[in-house]
Amino acid sequence: MSATTPAQAMIATLGAGARAASRRLAAASTADKNRALLAAAETLAASADAIIAENAKDLEAAQASGLSSAAIDRLRLDHKRIGAIAQALREVAALPDPVGEIIGMTTRPSGIRVGRMRAPIGVVGIIYESRPNVTADAAALCLKSGNACILRGGSEAFHSNRAIAAAMARGIAHAGLPAESVCFVATTDREAVGAMLAADRLIDVIIPRGGKPLIERVSREARMPVVKHLDGNCFVYVDEGADHAMAEAIVTNAKCQRPGVCNALETLLVHAAEAPAFVPRVAAALKARDVEIRGCPRTCAMVLGAVPATEEDWDAEYLDLILAVRIVDSFAEAVAFINDHGSHHTDAIVTRDHSRAMRFLREVDSACVHINCSTRFSDGGEYGLGAEIGISTDRLHARGPMGLAELTTPKWIVFGDGEVRG
Amino acid sequence: MSATTPAQAMIATLGAGARAASRRLAAASTADKNRALLAAAETLAASADAIIAENAKDLEAAQASGLSSAAIDRLRLDHKRIGAIAQALREVAALPDPVGEIIGMTTRPSGIRVGRMRAPIGVVGIIYESRPNVTADAAALCLKSGNACILRGGSEAFHSNRAIAAAMARGIAHAGLPAESVCFVATTDREAVGAMLAADRLIDVIIPRGGKPLIERVSREARMPVVKHLDGNCFVYVDEGADHAMAEAIVTNAKCQRPGVCNALETLLVHAAEAPAFVPRVAAALKARDVEIRGCPRTCAMVLGAVPATEEDWDAEYLDLILAVRIVDSFAEAVAFINDHGSHHTDAIVTRDHSRAMRFLREVDSACVHINCSTRFSDGGEYGLGAEIGISTDRLHARGPMGLAELTTPKWIVFGDGEVRG
Repeated sequence: MSATTPAQAMIATLGAGARAASRRLAAASTADKNRALLAAAETLAASADAIIAENAKDLEAAQASGLSSAAIDRLRLDHKRIGAIAQALREVAALPDPVGEIIGMTTRPSGIRVGRMRAPIGVVGIIYESRPNVTADAAALCLKSGNACILRGGSEAFHSNRAIAAAMARGIAHAGLPAESVCFVATTDREAVGAMLAADRLIDVIIPRGGKPLIERVSREARMPVVKHLDGNCFVYVDEGADHAMAEAIVTNAKCQRPGVCNALETLLVHAAEAPAFVPRVAAALKARDVEIRGCPRTCAMVLGAVPATEEDWDAEYLDLILAVRIVDSFAEAVAFINDHGSHHTDAIVTRDHSRAMRFLREVDSACVHINCSTRFSDGGEYGLGAEIGISTDRLHARGPMGLAELTTPKWIVFGDGEVRG
Repeated sequence: MSATTPAQAMIATLGAGARAASRRLAAASTADKNRALLAAAETLAASADAIIAENAKDLEAAQASGLSSAAIDRLRLDHKRIGAIAQALREVAALPDPVGEIIGMTTRPSGIRVGRMRAPIGVVGIIYESRPNVTADAAALCLKSGNACILRGGSEAFHSNRAIAAAMARGIAHAGLPAESVCFVATTDREAVGAMLAADRLIDVIIPRGGKPLIERVSREARMPVVKHLDGNCFVYVDEGADHAMAEAIVTNAKCQRPGVCNALETLLVHAAEAPAFVPRVAAALKARDVEIRGCPRTCAMVLGAVPATEEDWDAEYLDLILAVRIVDSFAEAVAFINDHGSHHTDAIVTRDHSRAMRFLREVDSACVHINCSTRFSDGGEYGLGAEIGISTDRLHARGPMGLAELTTPKWIVFGDGEVRG
């Protein structure tokens, strides 16, 4: 027996509770889960004053530690924001339940009927550094998909997150499902993260949400599968013969509509045949929106004020009003460049050519491949998932925006009538 | 720059070749891939004499090291066995291609059309200790699904595996696809496994096939996702009101038809209402087949010669003519016992009750859940996958037998006509 730290003991206790809750949730009816979500929305709304009082402790600590005013604003909870969080729970209750869906039934020569049924994953660990609403959103998506969750939030929002999780757990228990469906790691002990990542018998998958150091630590240490979201270095390729007005609208939207997010455009590739007319045109449109252009030598020769790009620029996720621009001589060069330098998140082509459009879908090795529309559509809401637990840049299980279905896996089901194997 | 060992250098070279090959394979047509598989079958058959000569080196070493005669027989290749391996490649060529399948297209309010397309995973690493035919089978399944593979076989079959992989690579190259589609780790240096497991930028998923020490090492060390196959501690539960003749046929088949495999029965649960009639009946049938029974106290009171079971027996994978038998008082107790003591591989119920049959499917947390048929059907061939790259006891990506589709993941595809996000 190895010695147990307080953090390990806490995770072991939470994990045992979550495992038992996950069994109950896997067997729960859609109606029971929806009732629990609606009850959680009620207790959350009814606990608004208490949550705001806990939030005040986080805000005070944030001010004392000199957090930026923008960060403090993101942290702040008021009645309106808590109302919105409760409303989001009601919206998850209204989504279709993925659990129990049966797909692909076939009858085999032996007589057995074989298919698959969607089942919850089990216990989902979520380690996040985001705003307190993630506590409620993630817990709701896990519950709806029949999974228990163990939540570890960032220390800046510790009191707020704990109060939200506790209010939800009360509502869920009141509706007759286990309070342990939503387990919150109620300590700021930094060892708790390590204890979670080592607990591969208690936690079936870890979803980290936060900055790169968090994601990299989780990938390195976790003994269970991880579904992670790393960089979003998104490309648009303007193909030979593309419509210049459409390409300009897509490029400016993808770059400027919200430059700080992972599906914003970072690198523009332009076919050499279109470059002499298109590159100066799009550069003017971007300049009017204060975008700095870092170009290949041919781009710099066409755009006054463009900064020569370095090798690093082709791999960079700026999350800012900066765009790398490169002229390519062929479709194949564009695809190879995207596969070599992109982050396999979201890439788009602007083209009139059907054959190249379909080749782009097939050959670009990214989670999301777009034809003739902005990269900014790469999002659970825009794709119609209803809600999003995260965006995967991994290659197994799920790629891109993950909704309720991605919190399940199909298991095999077989109906027989006494068949044995000969 | 850290120092590079010879094993690391070899894996880096193989990985770069495999990555480039994977791009070509992802874009290759079904016809091109099938032509390559048929060409590989031809070169394999044409190289039979050379492969048999290499196999002789492995057989000689096996005899010198005192391997059992059964193990030596499994290792042996002759013209008939090589013909069967080549024929298996032709059968993979005849299977439907999962790549490019488009599912779930919907039109969103923004005007974009969103769906998913099956795409290869990329580079698949396979570390195996099995018979030389796995070299050909695994390579063929990876190629058909558009993946390059890096194969690391067991040292007992080193010369045979290398010769088979080389013959296949020649055929594939002759048909116009990259020889590096099938990369073989041509060294017995034990560091090569460690180098593979660390190469998360070169290898996208590792599939270990072999004994428990191998699986556990791979799970512990791999920095990339692993799809692994651990224990098969399979249960049959004979429900209240079950047909005793059907239950006897299923239990004896599941236990005795091939006791050494992962989908063989290891533990029998019997509802107390059926036990007085059924347990002595099935015990007699099993005794006639030389099966040792390890029973709970109530079982031992009913079965002359039953050995009292210890706590370890409920978790044991015997892979032998031994069966643990336990009497339970309710359906709920049976399900809870299976979830607590089973290995989440394959479990079956024998029942006449529709409601409990459907609850068993839902509540038993296993990769394969069977109603009224033998656990022995849990197999890629029996399920209709055509061929099987392995069986997953993991919970993400794929559970249970994995075929060609499980060597792909769906990526998001979006068709637009100039849409931008508002």
